[in-house]
Amino acid sequence: MAINLRTLIVAAVAIMGCGMCHAQQNLWQYSQVVSPELHDDGSVTFRLFAPEAESVDVVGDFLAKGCSEVAMQPIGNGVWEYRTEPLPSELYTYSFRIDDVRTIHDPSNVYVMRDVATLMNYFIVPGERGDLYSAQNVAHGTLSRVWCEVERGKSRRMAVYTPAGYEDGRGRYPVLYLLHGMGGDEEAWIATGRVVEIMDNLIAKGAAEPMIVVMTNGCTKHSSAPGFSHEGLWQPYMSGSMDGSFEASFPAIVKWVDKHYRTVARKSSRAIAGLSMGGFHSMQIAKEYPAMFDYVGLFSAAIFRGDDGVAMYDNLEAKLERQFAHPPKLYWIAIGSEDFLLEESVRYRELLDSCNYQYAYFESGDGHIWRNWRIYLSMFVPQLFKK
Amino acid sequence: MAINLRTLIVAAVAIMGCGMCHAQQNLWQYSQVVSPELHDDGSVTFRLFAPEAESVDVVGDFLAKGCSEVAMQPIGNGVWEYRTEPLPSELYTYSFRIDDVRTIHDPSNVYVMRDVATLMNYFIVPGERGDLYSAQNVAHGTLSRVWCEVERGKSRRMAVYTPAGYEDGRGRYPVLYLLHGMGGDEEAWIATGRVVEIMDNLIAKGAAEPMIVVMTNGCTKHSSAPGFSHEGLWQPYMSGSMDGSFEASFPAIVKWVDKHYRTVARKSSRAIAGLSMGGFHSMQIAKEYPAMFDYVGLFSAAIFRGDDGVAMYDNLEAKLERQFAHPPKLYWIAIGSEDFLLEESVRYRELLDSCNYQYAYFESGDGHIWRNWRIYLSMFVPQLFKK
Repeated sequence: MAINLRTLIVAAVAIMGCGMCHAQQNLWQYSQVVSPELHDDGSVTFRLFAPEAESVDVVGDFLAKGCSEVAMQPIGNGVWEYRTEPLPSELYTYSFRIDDVRTIHDPSNVYVMRDVATLMNYFIVPGERGDLYSAQNVAHGTLSRVWCEVERGKSRRMAVYTPAGYEDGRGRYPVLYLLHGMGGDEEAWIATGRVVEIMDNLIAKGAAEPMIVVMTNGCTKHSSAPGFSHEGLWQPYMSGSMDGSFEASFPAIVKWVDKHYRTVARKSSRAIAGLSMGGFHSMQIAKEYPAMFDYVGLFSAAIFRGDDGVAMYDNLEAKLERQFAHPPKLYWIAIGSEDFLLEESVRYRELLDSCNYQYAYFESGDGHIWRNWRIYLSMFVPQLFKK
Repeated sequence: MAINLRTLIVAAVAIMGCGMCHAQQNLWQYSQVVSPELHDDGSVTFRLFAPEAESVDVVGDFLAKGCSEVAMQPIGNGVWEYRTEPLPSELYTYSFRIDDVRTIHDPSNVYVMRDVATLMNYFIVPGERGDLYSAQNVAHGTLSRVWCEVERGKSRRMAVYTPAGYEDGRGRYPVLYLLHGMGGDEEAWIATGRVVEIMDNLIAKGAAEPMIVVMTNGCTKHSSAPGFSHEGLWQPYMSGSMDGSFEASFPAIVKWVDKHYRTVARKSSRAIAGLSMGGFHSMQIAKEYPAMFDYVGLFSAAIFRGDDGVAMYDNLEAKLERQFAHPPKLYWIAIGSEDFLLEESVRYRELLDSCNYQYAYFESGDGHIWRNWRIYLSMFVPQLFKK
């Protein structure tokens, strides 16, 4: 797992000698430092070549709580360095701050993910959790970006995972619909949520049923993640759709998926889950179309955040009564103990309790962060579609 | 097309007021400057907030020849700025250099592409060429990442484009196999080559036949682009495979594609093209399996670069004679007048001329750069599979 870029540099210098050094545009701007370097004990060293800088910080979710950044130290030859304590196995994101420039990617590390408008480098500390979030030597599913016609002449982009074996067989599969949060899009669960890796790994070890995963775009102001539609290269922002429009399109989405994939097109083979705004959407869709989903997952859900005056959001209690008259097999609520939405999760569970509706509840540590959502997904998926 | 981030910021501040401002991890680190700003005349302004910097440069392929960087000027409040001359319609890449730190992405711009080991921001100046490289309001194809079993138990990752309508019909389609250069992988043509946008747009306006495009990974040292296989988060480098191993696997790849997609499985409905090392691979594969491809595209091809002692690379003239006994419908060679491989392209054409083999030749300006490869692709594709 240790990234040995020095070996690569030696190899590269040899290759350059063969006359291919100008083979591609902008190619050979590698940095001459190794960063991040993962050590066997789980600690990580960051390095940056910045000889003129007054100060260099590293910012990231590996830092202890309450610590927003840590200063890197000059170690000579213009290189700054910081070595962490041993870290638990996880996927971590980070960026550098040179003097007052806020977000600078590590020029030695091509692994970058986007969360709404923020690009961050990442690395993975191996071990139980990190291995689940990394590609392993197992059969891999297919990931497709498709355009789903939600109404005549109007399409929206989705990401669809089909499990290993789907293309080689004729069998039908259950479907998990997986929804992002505010400002997110159909790329969010793939990049930061590690859906492909988690699904491949859980299915390969028999911990989850093979299933299709459909990742929609729940911000109806745009038809796709930034850059993939005719709306141009807009910069993403904290947009959301809590006006009922996304939820109302869901029957068309399910119909499209059932037509275009070999699904088991019934309630017992459909699940819906989402994070934050996507948890709100999942709650709304599951109660609005009670014959559609037998598995519902609300991850750090924004339960009481819908726009005012939206008919679909009215009469929540009556609609829940209708839904729970034929209750879903699993209604799973998860949230972090430090989540700013914890209070409304408590209120929602009080409502469910008062009506004696059955649900499962998991409270993790931490707050409204992707680390939790990957954990929730990894816990939710093995509970689905068990025969 | 102009990116108006200020409007977004106003909208965002309004949204933040609703209490969702902590909704996601690392979310709201937007920079308060707009960059890049595209002007109606095709000029572009770059901005960076870097109050402590001694100097800030912008580096990119929009610069005039021989100009490797240009200094940005401080305009107050810690912001540096540079406005270009009006630029021809194109896709351009750039990065910033703060003091001596070489590659820094623009924190105001989430659009990033990777070329081998280099991450670069990009923008598109609208117009004929830029519009061809941008998603337009047309029917979109599907892009899938699949794992192709090239031999029993051994799979390699590929990207596959299927044109709009493929999933809704039963028709069969011709296939273009599109190969990357040294250090590239199955992601290269998608990211920097703009294959999805070019294909969608050419097909939508009737300039190209609907076709499947298969983008293989021609570096057999790895089974996928970095990060997608069990090889971990390795940093990409200038690797290549010119030992015959990739070419030898091609019949298995074609067989797999013909089995898993609705292809027209015959020579007249297959094309192969590649850039640089991928041009070499295309030349080798087309001559080695002369019944396979009726259309061959050599883009800035490295013709005489194969490893020594590889049997497949021997007897080139005899194998070309066998291939041209039943000549391909199109044998298309393109290269830039400043390409460092121009001389061997000239030698190769002399060889073809001496045997009176038919080919078409296009010489562009510029050298061994992605701008040329996008142009070549856009010229090659409309010539394929005409009825």
